[in-house]
Formats: sequence, C-alpha cells, structure tokens
Amino acid sequence: MTAAQTTTLGPDSDLSQIFELAQQLRVDSVRASTAAGSGHPTSSLSAADLMAVLMTRHLRYDWDAPDNPAGDHLVFSKGHASPLLYAMFKAAGVVSDDTLMTTYRRFGHRLQGHPTPVLPWVDVATGSLGQGIGYGVGIALAGRELDKQPYRVWVLCGDSEMAEGSVWEALDKAGHYRLANFTAVIDVNRLGQCGPTELEWDTGTYARRIEAFGCRAIVIDGHDLQAIDQALTTAADGQAPTVIVARTVKGRGVAEVADKEGWHGKALPEDMADRAVAELGGVRNLHVRGPRPPAVTPAPIPAAGPIELPRFAVGDKVATRVAFGHALAALGARPDVVALDAEVGNSTHAQDFEKAHPERYFQTYIAEQQMIADAVGMAVRGYRPYATTFAAFLTRAHDFIRMAAVSQITMALCGTHSGVEIGADGPSQMGLEDLAMMRAVHGSTVLYPSDATSAAALTAAMAELDGISYLRTTRGSYPVLYDGDETFPVGGSKTLRHSPHDRVTLIGAGVTLHECLAAAEHLAADDVPARVIDLYSLKPVDAAALARAAQETGALVVVEDHHPEGGIGEAVLSALAATGSHPAFSHLAVTGLPGSGTTDELLDAAGISHPHIARAARALLGP
Amino acid sequence: MTAAQTTTLGPDSDLSQIFELAQQLRVDSVRASTAAGSGHPTSSLSAADLMAVLMTRHLRYDWDAPDNPAGDHLVFSKGHASPLLYAMFKAAGVVSDDTLMTTYRRFGHRLQGHPTPVLPWVDVATGSLGQGIGYGVGIALAGRELDKQPYRVWVLCGDSEMAEGSVWEALDKAGHYRLANFTAVIDVNRLGQCGPTELEWDTGTYARRIEAFGCRAIVIDGHDLQAIDQALTTAADGQAPTVIVARTVKGRGVAEVADKEGWHGKALPEDMADRAVAELGGVRNLHVRGPRPPAVTPAPIPAAGPIELPRFAVGDKVATRVAFGHALAALGARPDVVALDAEVGNSTHAQDFEKAHPERYFQTYIAEQQMIADAVGMAVRGYRPYATTFAAFLTRAHDFIRMAAVSQITMALCGTHSGVEIGADGPSQMGLEDLAMMRAVHGSTVLYPSDATSAAALTAAMAELDGISYLRTTRGSYPVLYDGDETFPVGGSKTLRHSPHDRVTLIGAGVTLHECLAAAEHLAADDVPARVIDLYSLKPVDAAALARAAQETGALVVVEDHHPEGGIGEAVLSALAATGSHPAFSHLAVTGLPGSGTTDELLDAAGISHPHIARAARALLGP
Repeated sequence: MTAAQTTTLGPDSDLSQIFELAQQLRVDSVRASTAAGSGHPTSSLSAADLMAVLMTRHLRYDWDAPDNPAGDHLVFSKGHASPLLYAMFKAAGVVSDDTLMTTYRRFGHRLQGHPTPVLPWVDVATGSLGQGIGYGVGIALAGRELDKQPYRVWVLCGDSEMAEGSVWEALDKAGHYRLANFTAVIDVNRLGQCGPTELEWDTGTYARRIEAFGCRAIVIDGHDLQAIDQALTTAADGQAPTVIVARTVKGRGVAEVADKEGWHGKALPEDMADRAVAELGGVRNLHVRGPRPPAVTPAPIPAAGPIELPRFAVGDKVATRVAFGHALAALGARPDVVALDAEVGNSTHAQDFEKAHPERYFQTYIAEQQMIADAVGMAVRGYRPYATTFAAFLTRAHDFIRMAAVSQITMALCGTHSGVEIGADGPSQMGLEDLAMMRAVHGSTVLYPSDATSAAALTAAMAELDGISYLRTTRGSYPVLYDGDETFPVGGSKTLRHSPHDRVTLIGAGVTLHECLAAAEHLAADDVPARVIDLYSLKPVDAAALARAAQETGALVVVEDHHPEGGIGEAVLSALAATGSHPAFSHLAVTGLPGSGTTDELLDAAGISHPHIARAARALLGP
Repeated sequence: MTAAQTTTLGPDSDLSQIFELAQQLRVDSVRASTAAGSGHPTSSLSAADLMAVLMTRHLRYDWDAPDNPAGDHLVFSKGHASPLLYAMFKAAGVVSDDTLMTTYRRFGHRLQGHPTPVLPWVDVATGSLGQGIGYGVGIALAGRELDKQPYRVWVLCGDSEMAEGSVWEALDKAGHYRLANFTAVIDVNRLGQCGPTELEWDTGTYARRIEAFGCRAIVIDGHDLQAIDQALTTAADGQAPTVIVARTVKGRGVAEVADKEGWHGKALPEDMADRAVAELGGVRNLHVRGPRPPAVTPAPIPAAGPIELPRFAVGDKVATRVAFGHALAALGARPDVVALDAEVGNSTHAQDFEKAHPERYFQTYIAEQQMIADAVGMAVRGYRPYATTFAAFLTRAHDFIRMAAVSQITMALCGTHSGVEIGADGPSQMGLEDLAMMRAVHGSTVLYPSDATSAAALTAAMAELDGISYLRTTRGSYPVLYDGDETFPVGGSKTLRHSPHDRVTLIGAGVTLHECLAAAEHLAADDVPARVIDLYSLKPVDAAALARAAQETGALVVVEDHHPEGGIGEAVLSALAATGSHPAFSHLAVTGLPGSGTTDELLDAAGISHPHIARAARALLGP
C-alpha cells in the first residue's frame, strides 16, 4: 500500500483493515510529533487500536457537521495524546496530512500541543489530567436530561490520571445517574511521566474500583481488535455507564520505545522516527467514514417565559444570596438556564431554582470539581449553567475553572458566604481568596453586589455574558439600597453619596459598602463630606468613575472583606494606573487570620468596619 | 447521677459507663451549641458513641502533653462536629464546662466554629470537607516513614464528604502505602445539609469502594458500643489501613430531631435543648483518662550535614527549575527536609532530591490535593516539606493550600512551567494564575527568581520561613546573572542596571526580567537610560526600592508572564500606593488566550517581549 492510494473504511470494514488504520494513526502520531520536535507519541501509540475501532465502527459522528445534535461526543481526557487525536482528524478527512505535518504545535495554528475547542471537533480543552472524564459525564447528563438526544459520550483516559480524585467524582456521578450513554476507555499503558504508574497493569483493581462506583467495567487487551469491538458494542448497549479497562503497551508497535521508561512526552529523533514508520508498515492514506448519527427531529425549543425579577423595597433587610436565589428561579423561565448545587443549596439559595424548575436542577453533592465539570458539559451543549457553592469552596474547583476558560466556556458561578462577615463558623468557611482567584481567570467577569436589587439584576445580567462570570454574595441581611427600576450595567458603578465638596471617596462592595455608608455619616457629622461608590463590578471595573472620584476628591479609601491581594483594592489601583490618576490612597482589607465571632466583631477586628474607614479617611486628609 | 459527682473512666471501664460518657458528649454538644446560638448538634449526636469508645479505650493520648511524640492523632475531618470534639476535650479535663458553655463560637476564643490548631489538641484546621482524611494519611505516613513512632492516626469523617474526590485520593494512598497505623471512621448518618446523602445508608457500597481502594472495611452499627469497640480493636491490630463504616442516626438520642431533615447546622432552641438534655439523662460530669501513649525513647535526631548549595557560572544558561532541583537535593542534608512530587519530578527537577534522599521523597502520583495533604501531615510532625508540580496544577490543590494557611502550616511549594514561556504544550500547561492564587494565601511568601543563583538561594531561604512559601520557576534556560556570593533576602530586589540619569525603570521577574534587560539595551542604544529591577520577592515586596525607582526615574514598566490580575503588576501598585509614589506606569501582562508556539513567538504575541517593553517605556516618556 502506498501513500497515494486512498481506501475508505466504514462500519463494515473488517478488522484487518482497521488494523491498517491503527497503524496509520501510529505512523502519523510519530511523524507529526517528530516534525513538531515535541509531543507525546508513545502515549498515542498505546491507544491507537482503541481509537481505530471506535472511529470506524462505533463513533456516530458527522465530521462535516460537528454540531449535529444527535452526534456522539469524543473527549480525550488524556489530552497529551493529541498526535493520536489529530491523526484521527486526518483519517476522518477534516485535517490534511500537510496541515498535520506542518502546523502541529506551531504558533498561530489550531493543532495545539493539547486539544482545545479552537478545533470544531473538540468540545473541551484538556491537558490538566482527570478533567476530561468529568466533562464527559456532564455532556452525557445534558444529553439525557436536557437535550434528550440519543448521542453517546466516549472518553479516552490515561491510567496515570486515575490517581486524581476528580476521576472518582466523575464516575460516582456516572453511576449515580446511571448514565448509560457514557463510556470511558482507560488506556492502561503502565507507564506515566516519571516511571510506572501507581497500579501498573493491575486491571483487576481498576475494575473493582469502577464497579464499586456504580459503573460497568470491562477488562480487555487493548490491542485485541476483536475484544475492543466487543467491548465498545457492549458499552453502547444502553444498559449502564461503562468503563473499558484496556491493558496496553506504551509505544506499542515501535520496538525501540515499546514499554520502555524514559520516552514519555518525547518526540522520536528523525532517524528513530524513520525506523518506527518503517516498522509500522509505512505511510498510509486510509480514510474513515464511520457510522452516522441517527436522524432525529430536534424537539422544539420551548419558548422562554417572561422573566419577572424579584423586586425589593428600599430599606428592607435582604441578603444578596436570597436575592440571587429568587432571581435565579425567575431566570429559569429561560429554558436554557440550568442550576447546579454542591449540597449547600439552602445556604446559597440555589434551592429556589430547584423548587421552580426541578428538571433543570442538578445536585452534585459535595463534589465541587464535578459540579464545574457538569456545568462545562452542559455549556458545551449550549445551556447556561449557574454553579453555586460557598465562595471558599469554589477554590476546590480552581483548576476546572481555569481550564473552562481555556475551553472558552460560558457559565455563571455564584459564591456565597464571602469574607469574615459570615461570623461564628470561622475561617474555614470564609471566602477570602475568591476575588483574586476569579479576577485572574482569563476572560472572566467579576460582580459583587451590595444589595438585593443589584444582586437580582446582576444575576440576570450574567445570563447575557460570554465567558465565565462570577457573582459574590453575602451571608447576612443588609438594607436594600436601590429601587427596582435601577440598572446595573456590567462595568459600571453607583455613586451613592456625592457633593461638589467631597474631600474623600469611600469605595466598597458587599458588606463593606454598607460600612462605607455608615462611615460617610460619621464623617459628615465632622464636616468631612465623603463620596461613596458601590463598586459592584470588579472586572470590568468602572475606571472612569474611579478616575473622576480621584480627581474630584483627591483621596480614596478602598475597603474589602477579602485578603489584600488580588481583590477590590488592587482592581482599583490597576484602574487608576491605567487612567493616570494619583489620589491619596488607603486600602483596608483582611490581613490577619480571623476566628469566630459576630459579624460586627469580626469586621472590626479585621479593620474594615466603619470606624476604621472613617479613621482611614481622616488620616488621608491629614490634620 | 448529678453534675457534682465526678467519675473517671478509663480503658477498663465497662460499656455501660462508656454509654454514660456518650450521653454526656451528646448533652454537652447540645448545651454548647444552644448556648452559642449556632453549630451542628445533630452531626455531633450521631458520632458520640464512636468517639466515647475511642477516647476511653483506644486513643493513646497524653492530654497534658499533646506533643508527646508517641501519642495518637485524632482528626475531625467532619470539622462541623466541633461540639462533639470540644465535649470530648471537656471529658478529658482540658477544657472546663464553663469554657465550653461561654466561649464556643465566641469572638477571641479558641473553641471556634470549626476546629483549628489554636487548640493544642488539634493538629489541623478542618471545615472544608474531604480534607481531614487526607491530612490523617499524611500524618500516618510521617509516623511510619519519618518519625518511626508507634502512634496511630484516627480520623472521623462524615458521609457527605465521601463525595469529594480528595477522599479517594487519600484512601488510595493509605492503601498504596499500606498504612496500618491509619483508621478512618465514617459516621454514616444518612443526612447531609440539604437532605439525604448520595448513598444514604448503603454501607455495602461504601465498603466495596474502600476495599477497592486498598483499605480494610468494617461495617458496624455505630451505636452498638460492643461493635464499635471490636472494630476499633481490629483497626489497631497493625495489619492494614482500616475504614470503619458506621451506620448511625443523625440526632441520635433526641427524638425530636433524630433522623429528621431540616436540622443540619442548627442549634436547638432553648426549650428543645432542655427537653433533649432531659431525654439524654441530664448533665453528667464524667472524666476520661484513656490509654497512655507507649513510653518510647525518641530516636536521636540525625545531625544536619553541611548544606552546599550549587554554584553557577555567570552567563551560563541554566533553568531556574534545574537550580531548584540541585538546591533542594543539597538542602536534604537537613534531616527535616522532605520532598513531594505529583509525578512530574523529572520536569520540576524535584527528582534530584529523590536521587540523593530517596527515604524522604514521596511520590504521590497525579493527585495534587493529596500531595498537599501529605505535606501538611508531615509539617504537623515538624518536617519541612517541599511540594512540587507545574504552577498550573497547583490550582488543583487551592482549597488545601487555603486551609493549610488556616492551620498555620509551614511548607514550601514550587510551581514550574510558569507562563506562556513554556511554548508548544499550550495553555493547559501554562501557569498564568498562580501568582494571584499564592499572593492571596494568608501569610504566604511568594518568590520568583530569574536566574539559577537566585533560584538556589531562595530555595534555601524557604527552609527558614514560617508559613506557606511559594517559588515560581521557569521551564527554559536563561543566563545566570549573579555570582554565587550574592545574597537574596526575602523582601528584597536587585537593581541590575542603573545610572543617575535613568529615565524609566523596567521591572520583571523570571523570563520577563531577561526581556527587560534586552529592552534596556535597546533603549540605551537610543540614549534612553533605563533602570532594571529583578523583583524576585513578590510578597513581601521591596517597596523601598520601588519607591526609590519611582522617585528617581519617574516612570515604571512592569512586565509579567501571568494574567494582569493579582500578579507582579498589582503587587507593585500596592507597594507604590503604600509609599505614596506616583510614577507614570505601564503594565504588560498576558491578556489573551495563548496557544502553542515557541517561547519567543508566545512572549511577543502576549506583548511581554523586549520590543514591547521598549515601546511601552518610550510611550511613557512621551515624544
């Protein structure tokens, strides 16, 4: 067979032809990575047989219309096996050999070192291990519960990543929901980056774990094409979530590297690559047209009902988390809005959504990583997830949020119980790092309302934003500041007190805005007129209002219930620097390690209560 | 029995006496939380029988000398059951009834809402679920591999937290290392915060999962004192890591709340509390002296050998991660230094330590949360852990790092492969959020060397710091800038170029420092003298040097291979604000979503290469 010949394989192709395809995938994995000078060929060689059978006989996929709603989904959780994935794209005819050979891992091109959705056949970015399997569960859940489409989800996992707890969160949910449309294939090639994996070829232990987590386990020789075909057939029988444990050889087919340590993540030098290609039977030009997705008539999309946001009376004491819950339930009139909870829905008030729209409410229990993975999977399918827990516990899912940004996912997060304000529960429950975390997420929007009206409006605004948006809410109840007709554009702010004679500006959000208002009263009593800004949008931030306040009052005090780094203070400083503003500046934040106490005690001990604010303002103005 | 009577229980007490103790623990849990007005009495009642038997007959602990090196360790992974833990402290005689009743959850006192190590009988802060069990594994590992002491570790878990993947990372390691000194007790009380748990009373499934993860499972009725005693006896037989799956009733002993939804995390109103205390048999004053730790002669602490840090020749190209590895291996001459790896030791160069000191090197495989948990457990026992992975993947353990700060743990973290500098692997592998994350950790130190000499020196400096320190290293090789005799105090900086005529200051760290030096050359060629500062210490930061540069040159350009939020730029702005400095300011950082490419291509595309720096400097200076 020469490179010039083109043979097309399909579901009816026999296993000897599929073997040739597997060898082609190997050859192209070696060639692409050697041409790039980096990459993971040996991790690709081990899984080539698995993927050759899958794409020829089982993956119901329309390569020309990857958005076909009935099409299967394929996720490479072992994203470093990108040479294999891209070799499959070549075999499918959507990427040319030239593109594979000249653009893999090159600047400005789509075939990146690890797959990302800049490629239309990739749903989610992978490369941080133990995540793709969770996203797969999320997509499968969306397929059954939301899309109600017959697609299946196939995930290719490495064996090293099975050490990640997130993998077991994912399989626990696959089992819990009985996601019969979900199949993971573990490429148990025994060798990780540094040497043997924890379990090496102990496929029995993998199987016991998988079964204990409620999934069906099928152990096979991952290079036996017939066994692979049988296992994939069984997996697709619609009976149970399935994990195929495939014993494989890293570097399979290339004697110089097969089952050898020291070859993880290394392209073969050119001479070795030449020998490997020869050993694998040379370059082929096989083309695959696997099974097509079933023809389905998409269910009509239900019309969005009218969204009636809650209204609150100015002066009433209402927690922003309560307003969030009401608004979220109201937003449920949009059929694409879904809500996810990590078993604190009665604290975050996400539970209000459950009462109104139980069919679009997902209880992920205390598994924040899988909550985000579910949200990502649903976002892949076009839904607008709101994922909710304590602000402190969103840190548990930081790597998932980071990767969701690489996937250019649109989703809304809400973190409640921010700061020392929560009181007696103590520091383990206080979100004091979340603003730094969420501001540093690529493309994020960070919102922090101070009253119920703005909380409800911003909750609704998040449903219109692209990318990852974050709403920080507060545990306690504080006076409603705004009438229901007020608007809160993202990137804006509200100036709550101002006069032509203001000598200082007090800037807060959440609980500290209320402390700023109290401090302004005290200052006014001392004939120090103070401007007060509600900085409800931290990213983007209202640089114009801040610059104007700097110019007109000459002195700013920023107060936040958060550690000093990466939060409101530094957001303000960045905005001032960008506008060339140079006011006198004071920054009050939580610098010590808090304990238990009442809200007032803890705000005061942290130096962010109104007496501290008034004192800081006076200190800026001088004697 | 009246409150006045004091009876002392010990290992020989019979089960009827231990029942009385359990009832006392219940009564005191109810009283303390009702007195505080908040807390988790029902979650305490379910586990009271388990803890009564444990503390009377099995926990070998010297309450008067909690630092006894042979003493057992008890970790409440379900930290919200603090009323029960503090009731145990009262029964042990180390906390008075008055203290329990008047200080629990009160400001300025030690009996916080969730346990923290401000109490000498608490090793680690808990309250973020799924973490205590991992810390317990770390302590057990330290006991067997480092301390070589006979202590056992007992962890009380809730059932809700078994949904956290981190629990399975922990049990996987307990099984992998065959930690026969480790026992977890799961209080399967069926009800979580929002309703039934995922597995409710399905103790068989818990047992299958535990066994599949390599631990011994013992299923019991958690209110059968004899069964509890037998299970704890078996657990302590030194044969295997053990998990006792105890079926219990939430709110056990108080009919009004027992097995009822809606009572999670709620103190009983006073009238209900009175009825509950009466139902439980009233207030008791039982005192417990359980088994004592075995008398051991502590092994002599080996003397520290001489630490000979590596030296590098100025101008040679050496990666900071390489220097870190050499320095870490050298630091191993200190017998308290240990290293932990998440299966990337050949990338981080932590592997150098493994070669030199294999007995103090711990491979945690790809399980970053458990890597940090192991480090915390070892730090509890007085070791100085260095935990290492890619900067990007430290985000996986953010919540563990946050909680370690609440525990006031001292440990060193090293994150490699920072920024777009890594090149072809793409955004999933690029640490672009780590500085924001680590700066916002309470009490942290954040270091970012630009050359091998400073990397080695700062690696050594971390062994002398309190709290959590972080070293950010770079993948590629860059010229050594400093002679081996140079010193790098934490909180300092280095001014690499300066003249009395400097018109602008360029500030970088890591790869951007080298770009700043190149930019300064270009500017010099245009007769624009530029100062260059190596800001190797980001927290604390050298505010004096920055203020001086602002004053003397009037213009600063800060360049970082990190997102703009929470990193070097904002650290500099905070320092300038604190010193009242107002230079012209330009901030170059990674604002877009990078792809694959060469280092030079990606630095340039991100706008942080030397041409961009020179251009930004010229723009600040104006025409």
